[in-house]
Amino acid sequence: MRKILLILTTLLCFSTYAQYKPDWQSLDQRQTPAWFEDAKFGIFIHWGIYSVPAWATNSNADGFGSGYAEWYWQRLFAPNLKIHKEFVAFHEKNYGKSSYQDFVQQFKAELFQPDDWAKIFEQAGAKYVVLTSKHHEGFTLWPSPQSWNWNAVDVGPHRDLAGDLSKAVKAKNLHMGYYYSLYEWFNPVYKSDVNTYVNERMIPQMKDLVTKYQPDILWTDGEWDHPAKTWKSEEFLAWLYNDSPVKNSVVVNDRWGNDTKSKHGSFYTSEYGHGGTDNTLTNGFARPWEECRGIGESFGYNRNENLGVYQTGEQLVHQLIDIVSRGGNFLLNIGPTADGRIPVIMQQRLREMGNWLKVNGSAIYGTRKWNKAPAYTKESKLYFTQKGKALYAIASKWQETITVENVEKPVKVKLLGFGGEVKYTYKNKVLTITAPQVNPNTIPCEYAWTYELTDALK
Amino acid sequence: MRKILLILTTLLCFSTYAQYKPDWQSLDQRQTPAWFEDAKFGIFIHWGIYSVPAWATNSNADGFGSGYAEWYWQRLFAPNLKIHKEFVAFHEKNYGKSSYQDFVQQFKAELFQPDDWAKIFEQAGAKYVVLTSKHHEGFTLWPSPQSWNWNAVDVGPHRDLAGDLSKAVKAKNLHMGYYYSLYEWFNPVYKSDVNTYVNERMIPQMKDLVTKYQPDILWTDGEWDHPAKTWKSEEFLAWLYNDSPVKNSVVVNDRWGNDTKSKHGSFYTSEYGHGGTDNTLTNGFARPWEECRGIGESFGYNRNENLGVYQTGEQLVHQLIDIVSRGGNFLLNIGPTADGRIPVIMQQRLREMGNWLKVNGSAIYGTRKWNKAPAYTKESKLYFTQKGKALYAIASKWQETITVENVEKPVKVKLLGFGGEVKYTYKNKVLTITAPQVNPNTIPCEYAWTYELTDALK
Amino acid sequence: MRKILLILTTLLCFSTYAQYKPDWQSLDQRQTPAWFEDAKFGIFIHWGIYSVPAWATNSNADGFGSGYAEWYWQRLFAPNLKIHKEFVAFHEKNYGKSSYQDFVQQFKAELFQPDDWAKIFEQAGAKYVVLTSKHHEGFTLWPSPQSWNWNAVDVGPHRDLAGDLSKAVKAKNLHMGYYYSLYEWFNPVYKSDVNTYVNERMIPQMKDLVTKYQPDILWTDGEWDHPAKTWKSEEFLAWLYNDSPVKNSVVVNDRWGNDTKSKHGSFYTSEYGHGGTDNTLTNGFARPWEECRGIGESFGYNRNENLGVYQTGEQLVHQLIDIVSRGGNFLLNIGPTADGRIPVIMQQRLREMGNWLKVNGSAIYGTRKWNKAPAYTKESKLYFTQKGKALYAIASKWQETITVENVEKPVKVKLLGFGGEVKYTYKNKVLTITAPQVNPNTIPCEYAWTYELTDALK
Amino acid sequence: MRKILLILTTLLCFSTYAQYKPDWQSLDQRQTPAWFEDAKFGIFIHWGIYSVPAWATNSNADGFGSGYAEWYWQRLFAPNLKIHKEFVAFHEKNYGKSSYQDFVQQFKAELFQPDDWAKIFEQAGAKYVVLTSKHHEGFTLWPSPQSWNWNAVDVGPHRDLAGDLSKAVKAKNLHMGYYYSLYEWFNPVYKSDVNTYVNERMIPQMKDLVTKYQPDILWTDGEWDHPAKTWKSEEFLAWLYNDSPVKNSVVVNDRWGNDTKSKHGSFYTSEYGHGGTDNTLTNGFARPWEECRGIGESFGYNRNENLGVYQTGEQLVHQLIDIVSRGGNFLLNIGPTADGRIPVIMQQRLREMGNWLKVNGSAIYGTRKWNKAPAYTKESKLYFTQKGKALYAIASKWQETITVENVEKPVKVKLLGFGGEVKYTYKNKVLTITAPQVNPNTIPCEYAWTYELTDALK
Repeated sequence: MRKILLILTTLLCFSTYAQYKPDWQSLDQRQTPAWFEDAKFGIFIHWGIYSVPAWATNSNADGFGSGYAEWYWQRLFAPNLKIHKEFVAFHEKNYGKSSYQDFVQQFKAELFQPDDWAKIFEQAGAKYVVLTSKHHEGFTLWPSPQSWNWNAVDVGPHRDLAGDLSKAVKAKNLHMGYYYSLYEWFNPVYKSDVNTYVNERMIPQMKDLVTKYQPDILWTDGEWDHPAKTWKSEEFLAWLYNDSPVKNSVVVNDRWGNDTKSKHGSFYTSEYGHGGTDNTLTNGFARPWEECRGIGESFGYNRNENLGVYQTGEQLVHQLIDIVSRGGNFLLNIGPTADGRIPVIMQQRLREMGNWLKVNGSAIYGTRKWNKAPAYTKESKLYFTQKGKALYAIASKWQETITVENVEKPVKVKLLGFGGEVKYTYKNKVLTITAPQVNPNTIPCEYAWTYELTDALK
Repeated sequence: MRKILLILTTLLCFSTYAQYKPDWQSLDQRQTPAWFEDAKFGIFIHWGIYSVPAWATNSNADGFGSGYAEWYWQRLFAPNLKIHKEFVAFHEKNYGKSSYQDFVQQFKAELFQPDDWAKIFEQAGAKYVVLTSKHHEGFTLWPSPQSWNWNAVDVGPHRDLAGDLSKAVKAKNLHMGYYYSLYEWFNPVYKSDVNTYVNERMIPQMKDLVTKYQPDILWTDGEWDHPAKTWKSEEFLAWLYNDSPVKNSVVVNDRWGNDTKSKHGSFYTSEYGHGGTDNTLTNGFARPWEECRGIGESFGYNRNENLGVYQTGEQLVHQLIDIVSRGGNFLLNIGPTADGRIPVIMQQRLREMGNWLKVNGSAIYGTRKWNKAPAYTKESKLYFTQKGKALYAIASKWQETITVENVEKPVKVKLLGFGGEVKYTYKNKVLTITAPQVNPNTIPCEYAWTYELTDALK
Repeated sequence: MRKILLILTTLLCFSTYAQYKPDWQSLDQRQTPAWFEDAKFGIFIHWGIYSVPAWATNSNADGFGSGYAEWYWQRLFAPNLKIHKEFVAFHEKNYGKSSYQDFVQQFKAELFQPDDWAKIFEQAGAKYVVLTSKHHEGFTLWPSPQSWNWNAVDVGPHRDLAGDLSKAVKAKNLHMGYYYSLYEWFNPVYKSDVNTYVNERMIPQMKDLVTKYQPDILWTDGEWDHPAKTWKSEEFLAWLYNDSPVKNSVVVNDRWGNDTKSKHGSFYTSEYGHGGTDNTLTNGFARPWEECRGIGESFGYNRNENLGVYQTGEQLVHQLIDIVSRGGNFLLNIGPTADGRIPVIMQQRLREMGNWLKVNGSAIYGTRKWNKAPAYTKESKLYFTQKGKALYAIASKWQETITVENVEKPVKVKLLGFGGEVKYTYKNKVLTITAPQVNPNTIPCEYAWTYELTDALK
Repeated sequence: MRKILLILTTLLCFSTYAQYKPDWQSLDQRQTPAWFEDAKFGIFIHWGIYSVPAWATNSNADGFGSGYAEWYWQRLFAPNLKIHKEFVAFHEKNYGKSSYQDFVQQFKAELFQPDDWAKIFEQAGAKYVVLTSKHHEGFTLWPSPQSWNWNAVDVGPHRDLAGDLSKAVKAKNLHMGYYYSLYEWFNPVYKSDVNTYVNERMIPQMKDLVTKYQPDILWTDGEWDHPAKTWKSEEFLAWLYNDSPVKNSVVVNDRWGNDTKSKHGSFYTSEYGHGGTDNTLTNGFARPWEECRGIGESFGYNRNENLGVYQTGEQLVHQLIDIVSRGGNFLLNIGPTADGRIPVIMQQRLREMGNWLKVNGSAIYGTRKWNKAPAYTKESKLYFTQKGKALYAIASKWQETITVENVEKPVKVKLLGFGGEVKYTYKNKVLTITAPQVNPNTIPCEYAWTYELTDALK
């Protein structure tokens, strides 16, 4: 009897204190907390010393990532890069012999109002926020002991930006997360001895971040130089899943080494590809995925982007429904200014997203990809999502007639946000909807329109 | 005989070279150059040292002009003003003991691209531009000898901002004009001896500005402390109309002394009133009028204005048609940043204006108030303009049926930008238009819709 | 009778209210206030924006004035000058694209303690002080209305440096004076129209300076481009001598036009020449003269001067006695730092002067050139001054035997500061002094030793 | 036989690879390299971020160390310290909300000329130099990987100050050394976990310093919070003595833990005490000792020190001979400015030292304390040193007669620097010297005079 008790206790202890072992086989067993896949729309924030020069050349289209202002520092020291000279010329013209580090004194965040930010995110319809706690420059937005005199409390803003935003975001019942770069371009400890860096700097720093602020998302990056073993990612994740204060709620992405992308992590990332991935089974587990991108081309604020570079509200809404209809999350980036403001044009775009989501949110939040959905084509201009038995057909162009196949039964069709009735015919599982008459006074929203087909699925 | 010839010659010379005498009676004889009243839409630009702190408290609604960032310096030294303390608190918190003059080093305009600006103005549908060559702070955007070491070439940007913008604007065939403040808050010469100031500083400075850059508009302000006699406005205008290089093209506003507003000048200004004035006969002469206002509340760039303070494109278009339908010009202000950019949200609003004007411009440019127009009411939501025999009915809300009285004859009705036909009935000089069926694909524009009634007037 | 009364009244009025007419003939009648010639030793202070870069190339010996840091600005724009490139290179290396005007923000004078300065001057044995109220850069150390935003109260120190020093100096019973540059290198009003400059800027500015601070010395400079007529110097001096608050006490130098040096003014200046002039009769009047020079080579503080460039205490004392023995005053310059300190090495040199003067002052103050003095030679190493019946023989090298000719009678011989007796012989008006035995404990001072010959003159 | 082999092997291993074990018993066996005790006079240099504010309150005499400008940062955060408020008030008045770290941008060292410095040290008669490679602020003057973005290459000067000075000093055949603070006031790693700090930061950093620059002196400080065990001082010194590139030449001081002062190290330090210590036997070994102090009161440059705070050349020379006569070394501190200059007053004092040493150096360099010397008294004013058989009697005041007891034999008496003969009498081992007649032309030096008694000792 006592023996059995002992075994039970042991099991209990094990399951309580060390559910996961520091190897992928075990770590991959952990299910992704459900909140993430339901959230669908998050706000990415790139904010750091790069927000001071806030400049990049004009287009990413050249394949050199020219338009990323957050890479400014690296550009100055990458002589083999095609765009190197443009960055150097800009720097010398405007800052002479000042170094990148000198910018820190102008990163003051003096107008930073985290509550206002959180309200803007909420009104945009976002469900979570991911802030760059540390980008490749190594500068931390919280007072990290491992980054003394190179963090936002010791120098520059003299304020715990990461902590203050976290409080405000959580007060709005949004999920708070942190981006964290594993590598640091110019940290001499990293450059000379990656193991010392990982053991003495990176791991203590990440644990400090998690322990202090208890984020729901840890969004790593800068992993590509080394395999996960070097970064000690498995050990860290075992700690995160077993012992950290967020072991139950946290989600992590898939950037834990040059051998982990789309293989390990709570969700997969598809930046740049724009093709997106699918919630396919990997290692036996289906994972949510998320695509991030900026409103303009740059993630960090780029003063060199004029209106033409910013996507329109229509483009962003189309991007959201494209991603969500394929099962993904959309992490839309904003680049605040060095003085702590969200550029008003970004507020405008977030407002446009929010206005659309206020009408069409039920076609987005909590939905899943509809497996029988036909692919979107230039002709169809139709996207589909499903939630429970409801099916959502979202038209990115107004169409007089819309045809949906594989509809199990035709219970009710509604144009979201529209008061009047919607006519349709149903035959051989094919539903044919006729658009109602609308005018500027009666049309429910701009950019895209959703037909909700309640109980359309089995 | 020879003597008579001599006298005649003398008179002729006089009338050629000195058409106008330095008194209002004579000056008011000058007709306002026609281009101005036809232009209808101009861009006002407030740019100066105040663009560095770029801050004001949040609302003009309090009657204290709290929201004007260009008044920042004055606010710091106006202890009787209700908002004084807020400005002082902001200044001390962010700039310590720095003086306003110290801001000049951060006014660098390093990203200023005048050609890009001009293109933005052109695409917005503007026909003229008015730049603050000198605001009440006394700082000049051109190298004024009277303002040594307090101008944009000697200090700060080290660039002739006024001259460079003038070139770019003229290259787009837009009219270029300058705002110029007669008084200077803190100029000790002005404060101790206004006559010395006028004779030794102001008059030489204005003549230098006109001679160097040959502007088509001189838009004075800061006139309220003294009558026109003190400012020597009559003498100056006689020079401007008789002898200056722009004597034929230039228009001036009505701010030439505390006794001239809506009495003298090429056009009258109606800022703040929002009620507008009318092209009524004053001193026997009808004058155009112009109303200016900002996209937000401030004229100078105000970092403290978030999206909620910015007017929407719809509001701005409604403001334009309200003003133009009453016979006025709309001078829409933008506030560039200290580094020389037009904030992207302002680019966005200008684009929205431009998009609307591209479709509806014929109802705006070159038009006049329709004297028989019924006043706009909350029920009618209709504005009218006329040009030649054409009448334009502009609906600021989509309406199924529109009724226009006093239509002489019903030749042709067109919805501007709409391909299809428009049905109407005509009876007893009353035209009743039925709105066509539209949807998002076919509606010609947003915000307001124009029915053109060709040959509707006698 | 009434006629005579009228004439008398007129004369009286004239003598009271307009003693001097604005022409040299009349102005030269004014006697130089006696205090000046008795003072002998004054402190010159060069302080301005140039104290910020505080740099010059290394030697004046090249004939290009390379070592004058106060000419920094001019050097940057004098391409024909041999040393131009060195200044430009220094500026670009250290300040990039900043302009000279930008330096003003670093001219803070935050450690300026005028009472400490005055005490240092007093302890140095100086009897007067001359501060650069405005150098050729045009920047004024007092709040001059004619130099708005280019003076020490509006920008930079935000303090009335000229006024505060004046108070402190006068409190020590020293005479206060101001250097004032007539011309300004880069003032566009001066450059384009000297008459406008003189009438509207310079004359009002000088009068303001005199009226506000009531200096005992007005030390003009920068006069060489124009004759006195152009500068309206005669009118100004007539005002100064007749109507100004310092009409009785003020002395002025001789730099009032390119035609006045060593001809007009209360005293003559001999800068650079080092040969000095003499109190010869000019225009029928004998004038005191004054020689100025720096402790190092530069007048404005020059960070590029190391110990080797600074004169030693011995050199300075020798310079003082050389000048005084020839009848002149010595105006020794110091260059304070931009933060308001007198460099300690300059305090050291002033202390060395003061220590010497404490012992030997009676051979300096109130003395005159001894007309029968033999010229100083490398062999004699002897200088002479006289005061009343006393004769002073100053040996710049210790000598066992000293011979003085033309001594009327041998009443008493004393080695100043030495307690013991001094032996001598007297024969045929020749006095032969035998130096007493001294050692480090008994020698009265360093550098030079004075034998006082009481009642030696008739 | 086996035993002997074992011993031989042990000896071999010991002498080759690990002569010293990491415990004091073994480390104390190492003899202090002879060069140090012979050098007698070195230059201490305090240079760091504190050279930017360069300020302290006015006197150390209060027992609070008020006058140490290098403690500026700590003063701001030591509310219990009497002088705290003065520092805070100064900081707020002059720098507002800027942090100490923000000063780094003004630490530019743009005028730093290491060769000139080295020449000044050489001419001062110094034989070694000790530079603060890192003070308690943690900022390193070399590019330390452990102090990323908080060192002189990454930020501020952007130059390897420690390395460049080392090269210049060695080129003059002076010994180069580094001051290094074990603790760092505000380093969060130090504050939260001293062991992690020691292992991961401090030890690697010290090894890097020694390996890169191969200094002859390592002058630690900031040891007082912990015993040597905590600092791992024994392990470090074993490495330094056995394996470092300077194992043969290096000397270290005695500040390796709060239990090591005057117990362990190559030499002992006696800062503050001014009483000095003696080369007494400690742990069985006699050690040299060294006393350091500033020319003024502060070690780091203090702009608040006027002439009165600086010691005179006489005081410094007296201090040197006092220390040397008691067997010590004198480490005289200078505080360079943030722009890289040695203040000229310090150059002056070093020159005064050098001038004295040029004449009297043989009484200083390579000498030892004379064990039979009578103590210096206010009456005697005599100091003694010995070298070989020569005895040196140094009079800090000129005296007609000097009496020296315990002189073995009277071979030759010379006044150093004086050409003439010196008379004396000798009786009962007592030598009585009569000072020669001197005057300003013949006296060999200022401040103090040395009688050399050749062959006076057995």
